Amino acid sequence: MEKKPWFEADIIELFSAREPEGVHNLVKGIGDDCAVIRPPGRQDLVVTADMLVEDVHFNRKWHPPFALGRKAMAVNISDIAAMGGTPQFAFLCIALPPQLDQDWLVSFRDGFRSMLSEYAITLAGGDTVRGAQLNISITLLGSVPAGRAVFRKGAGPGDSIYVSGHLGSAAAGLALCQSPRVCSTLDEHMVQPFLQRHLDPAPDLACGILLAESGYVTAMQDISDGIATDLAHLCRQSEVGAEIESVRIPCHEHLPGICEALNRNSMHMMVSGGEDYHLVFTVKAGSEEALEHYLAGKKKQAVYRIGTITSGSGVALCTGKEKKDITFKGYKHSG
Amino acid sequence: MEKKPWFEADIIELFSAREPEGVHNLVKGIGDDCAVIRPPGRQDLVVTADMLVEDVHFNRKWHPPFALGRKAMAVNISDIAAMGGTPQFAFLCIALPPQLDQDWLVSFRDGFRSMLSEYAITLAGGDTVRGAQLNISITLLGSVPAGRAVFRKGAGPGDSIYVSGHLGSAAAGLALCQSPRVCSTLDEHMVQPFLQRHLDPAPDLACGILLAESGYVTAMQDISDGIATDLAHLCRQSEVGAEIESVRIPCHEHLPGICEALNRNSMHMMVSGGEDYHLVFTVKAGSEEALEHYLAGKKKQAVYRIGTITSGSGVALCTGKEKKDITFKGYKHSG
Repeated sequence: MEKKPWFEADIIELFSAREPEGVHNLVKGIGDDCAVIRPPGRQDLVVTADMLVEDVHFNRKWHPPFALGRKAMAVNISDIAAMGGTPQFAFLCIALPPQLDQDWLVSFRDGFRSMLSEYAITLAGGDTVRGAQLNISITLLGSVPAGRAVFRKGAGPGDSIYVSGHLGSAAAGLALCQSPRVCSTLDEHMVQPFLQRHLDPAPDLACGILLAESGYVTAMQDISDGIATDLAHLCRQSEVGAEIESVRIPCHEHLPGICEALNRNSMHMMVSGGEDYHLVFTVKAGSEEALEHYLAGKKKQAVYRIGTITSGSGVALCTGKEKKDITFKGYKHSG
Repeated sequence: MEKKPWFEADIIELFSAREPEGVHNLVKGIGDDCAVIRPPGRQDLVVTADMLVEDVHFNRKWHPPFALGRKAMAVNISDIAAMGGTPQFAFLCIALPPQLDQDWLVSFRDGFRSMLSEYAITLAGGDTVRGAQLNISITLLGSVPAGRAVFRKGAGPGDSIYVSGHLGSAAAGLALCQSPRVCSTLDEHMVQPFLQRHLDPAPDLACGILLAESGYVTAMQDISDGIATDLAHLCRQSEVGAEIESVRIPCHEHLPGICEALNRNSMHMMVSGGEDYHLVFTVKAGSEEALEHYLAGKKKQAVYRIGTITSGSGVALCTGKEKKDITFKGYKHSG
């Protein structure tokens, strides 16, 4: 079948059409020089901007366009989640290679829109341009009750360190995509959770909002580069150290089996593998039970205590009596 | 001299360092998952996002990095100007080819920063990534008194059409850059204003704010794709037509001479050439004198009445008794 090329006019319509009218707080959406937003009172604005570049942050060979459209939003939503905020308005700038076919674009757009609708986000502006390399740059605006945003700074010695989900799944999924030969020897239902975490990660938005509301959380950030790097950022900004216990770090029940097939070390994948988009956060010493009780009452996903903040610096991985420095030893996809 | 390559860590520091502390309304700047902004009361938020791609929107062969850093900000400031807003917070996402040398980047950064400081804008976040193609994506946030943003929609039949500066200069500057042989035959001081308008355009920010404050302006937009296209957008959104008189469209005193040397039609350049980044706006019928008096009192730049809004549709260029349809016949650099 012949692939249809895209045309600029089509694309502008593709993204701008069908936007809801009368969105709360949006005075003017797509189609003017600027979007105009009327901020509600007693809310701070949270803003994040991310750029995803083909062959650097994603590979079109194995990344279905629908999933990519979702992931492009997910990585930004995860940043808002890490502040305890609620996302509201997205601005999509996209550079499209001329040879990209229109079916790909429609599917990307549908994936992108599915996230907008799942998270009640409105596309309020952006730019569609030509480029030799596919480049997706999204700015996401959200809100948080005034003064309640949770920063990376704020962790104190004795605070407990938690994560909001399994680590290493996204990295294992990426490794499976990169090793189709290995992947083809494994049952589809075994590899599916890992592929999904890499291709279409779900940000922990509801969890981030609850954690910020609880009042027990002293610092928080999302896990995009692996906990070895992301926790190191949190420690540096809080001017503290961290000790995490390898025995406490949670993973999917089949991660060791997948890693065996890939001939990779599973603990390394859990600690250094990026893009899980769960949250790492610290809880005031003595408030652990109260927090866990609070979360249980809200019936949200499990959280896992994996270690303790120290008065030192850097991140140590403790296995029995052995301590290994893993500060900034995480996944590096780019600046 | 050997060119120094850039390294990711350097670059993050390059853009994030030296940011002012304690910026009004900025609770958290660069270095966390999100920036946190506390919106002042009685202000609407205006937001614009633009993407500039190498070899599509700019050419590094003739665009000095300092000027490019300035222009990347200018095109966004111009969008805020077109709403009557004041820019405040910038988010810079940039994809950098690995072979880009560090001197280039430092100069780009210095140009970018010079605009931040000239317009009292704070860099509040962004993303620095690798990419095969240089790509600069900026989101700019600003404010406007609640309910006072000026839209493209709002022009009515009988309103007068104005522009805030000379048209065609940027297009002539681009043509000069593309024709170095012609350029080299001309005196430097003759070509300089045109090169500058293409390489380092000054947005009409103060003018946009005054126009919005005046209360006489019914619709406004910036001129990025040429008045034939930009005025057509304004007309479509206002559901009106426009007639502009070729004899009234202002240009630089040397545009005809430059166009002669380039063997180009000067009226075509004025009407269809893009990137002048002046404003086109409409003034309520009968309020022209009041507006001009208001502006004269503020000692701002000249504005030029070039035509009249009609009850029809599309944009017509009138020369004597001849009317030519020029609707959307402007410059197209991209979607």
